[in-house]
Amino acid sequence: MTSEAITVLGLGNLGRALAETFLRGGHPTTVWNRSAAKVFDLATSGATAASTVAEAVEASELVILVVLDHQAAQQVLSGVDVRGRALVNLTSGTPDEARELARWAEDNGAEYLHGAVYAVPQTIGTAESSINYSGSSAVHERWQKQLALLGKVTFLGEDAGRASGFDVAILSGMYGLIGGFLHAAAVARAGGISATELTPLLLSWLTDMHPALSTFAEEIDSGSYAAGESSLAMNQAGLAMLQRAVEVQGVPFAGLDSLKAMVDLQVDQGHGEESLARTVESFSAVASQRFAG
Amino acid sequence: MTSEAITVLGLGNLGRALAETFLRGGHPTTVWNRSAAKVFDLATSGATAASTVAEAVEASELVILVVLDHQAAQQVLSGVDVRGRALVNLTSGTPDEARELARWAEDNGAEYLHGAVYAVPQTIGTAESSINYSGSSAVHERWQKQLALLGKVTFLGEDAGRASGFDVAILSGMYGLIGGFLHAAAVARAGGISATELTPLLLSWLTDMHPALSTFAEEIDSGSYAAGESSLAMNQAGLAMLQRAVEVQGVPFAGLDSLKAMVDLQVDQGHGEESLARTVESFSAVASQRFAG
Ligand SMILES: NC(=O)c1ccc[n+]([C@@H]2O[C@H](COP(=O)([O-])OP(=O)(O)OC[C@H]3O[C@@H](n4cnc5c(N)ncnc54)[C@H](OP(=O)(O)O)[C@@H]3O)[C@@H](O)[C@H]2O)c1
Ligand SMILES: NC(=O)c1ccc[n+]([C@@H]2O[C@H](COP(=O)([O-])OP(=O)(O)OC[C@H]3O[C@@H](n4cnc5c(N)ncnc54)[C@H](OP(=O)(O)O)[C@@H]3O)[C@@H](O)[C@H]2O)c1
Repeated sequence: MTSEAITVLGLGNLGRALAETFLRGGHPTTVWNRSAAKVFDLATSGATAASTVAEAVEASELVILVVLDHQAAQQVLSGVDVRGRALVNLTSGTPDEARELARWAEDNGAEYLHGAVYAVPQTIGTAESSINYSGSSAVHERWQKQLALLGKVTFLGEDAGRASGFDVAILSGMYGLIGGFLHAAAVARAGGISATELTPLLLSWLTDMHPALSTFAEEIDSGSYAAGESSLAMNQAGLAMLQRAVEVQGVPFAGLDSLKAMVDLQVDQGHGEESLARTVESFSAVASQRFAG
Repeated sequence: MTSEAITVLGLGNLGRALAETFLRGGHPTTVWNRSAAKVFDLATSGATAASTVAEAVEASELVILVVLDHQAAQQVLSGVDVRGRALVNLTSGTPDEARELARWAEDNGAEYLHGAVYAVPQTIGTAESSINYSGSSAVHERWQKQLALLGKVTFLGEDAGRASGFDVAILSGMYGLIGGFLHAAAVARAGGISATELTPLLLSWLTDMHPALSTFAEEIDSGSYAAGESSLAMNQAGLAMLQRAVEVQGVPFAGLDSLKAMVDLQVDQGHGEESLARTVESFSAVASQRFAG
């Protein structure tokens, strides 16, 4: 029995890791990339180089697409015959963008599955990699074994936009963490502390915060914020202190200013003794008052 | 041998937990709080109620201060005779505020140690609690055993502002995480996903990010951002996508907008293929362009 042929469209950091993983798994792998140099690199690892998207799509029933963004994905697919193909798009995008490509695939005789990747290129194919999928359950079932080569497979349902719905929320949390980390490093540097001195203490405290965030999640879903061990008033004072400190050090951050404004709103409405989690109610309220760079 | 007397000034959520821990540890504990009701609560647990700050400070050589903020701390101490006392201030503040109180203590014949608490009130006195101190090493050495009742003791040196220097950096990271978490919950809610559905997936991915943040720390300290597995260009596209998504869902966040602007600055300067960690260099650059609510 020969292994199934697989095509990978897009050989950026992530696409290259995917193609290498399929090759290691014994799958005849056809690759295409906009700029040809990356294709030649992969060909030396045993991949078949395609010079057009059409040729690459022709080569395999399972076609993986992973390019910079939705616009690039549309450009790659534009005018290509995808009839009979299982199109798995791992390009990050909004829920609506995924649904739009799912409709396009359906109109063009292909099945569509969207995936959101929780891995860096180095961890693709290891136990640390996890991919959430939604869309065609037929594709998910038929190609589960091949997809499992890349990382843990979680199927979130038939709505092609659902994996991206989780993803935009997860990315919001991730960029909060990253923005906070970079701000912390800038604040530490301004205070004569190196990032490598800071990071172990910081990461250990961030990990300790996770149970509190799980409690926040329950408060948010129940809408009941009464028992606030981390009160809005205490955090308001903490944020005000922090704003003063980072201002003096010359490294303010709009993320902090915005969070403070949203906490203020809840305190002004008389909720000072309640949980910090109530701040989630400020997001839609302040959405109209945009912050401008 | 009798246990040493300890005084706790301030019985908010944190102060109450500290006083209860000293009482459980067998220390005669004297407490004071601005509003008297909280003092009576503690007195029923065996604490000695003081009706003035002076009376409370008189009662013990070791005096722990933990109130809302630096201004409150100044008000509490104003005009009080602290001669011969070991004053341990666990009130969150800026490095300069800690140094100011250290000078005040010295001028008034007391020794000063500042502490930054990494615990919530419920975990005080458990292995999950950790406190970084800086300032008087004499106080740290003399009272190490008593302080260890509250949580793991780390001494960061004689500069009274150093614990707060680490603290403002750690709090910057923490509020980044919290702001990102609350934003994620708002984004999820707008997409029909509950916070409790989201949180396990989110926290697992945030934990997976920690090694990447440690790599960022090394890049930041070395100033060498060349080998970017998470490139600025890829993150620029990801952030642009995320901005579109949260805008459509009615839950934008200035923290995201500001991070994007700082990434843009690095890409505009020609660093698109380098590491996202380079964004730290944007903080001081954009500090002057403040974001207004
Ligand atoms: N890297 C990660 O850690 C990671 C993790 C999760 C999700 N993702 C997502 O995976 C996707 C790819 O990420 P990556 O790290 O591989 O990005 P990358 O290294 O920046 O590569 C981008 C890829 O997109 C191609 N591309 C860009 N614009 C194009 C266009 N208009 N037409 C055709 N191809 C175009 C590039 O082709 P050229 O070589 O010709 O420029 C390149 O192959 C993104 O949506 C990203 O959000 C990445
Ligand atoms: N809670 C935590 O998880 C935590 C963790 C780490 C660090 N901290 C820090 O610990 C400190 C206290 O936090 P907390 O949670 O205990 O706050 P809290 O529950 O809000 O209590 C605030 C305390 O400050 C007192 N206070 C406020 N203004 C005052 C003034 N002008 N004069 C005298 N007393 C005044 C209050 O007295 P009344 O009762 O009279 O209002 C109360 O005892 C803060 O600096 C906080 O950042 C807290």
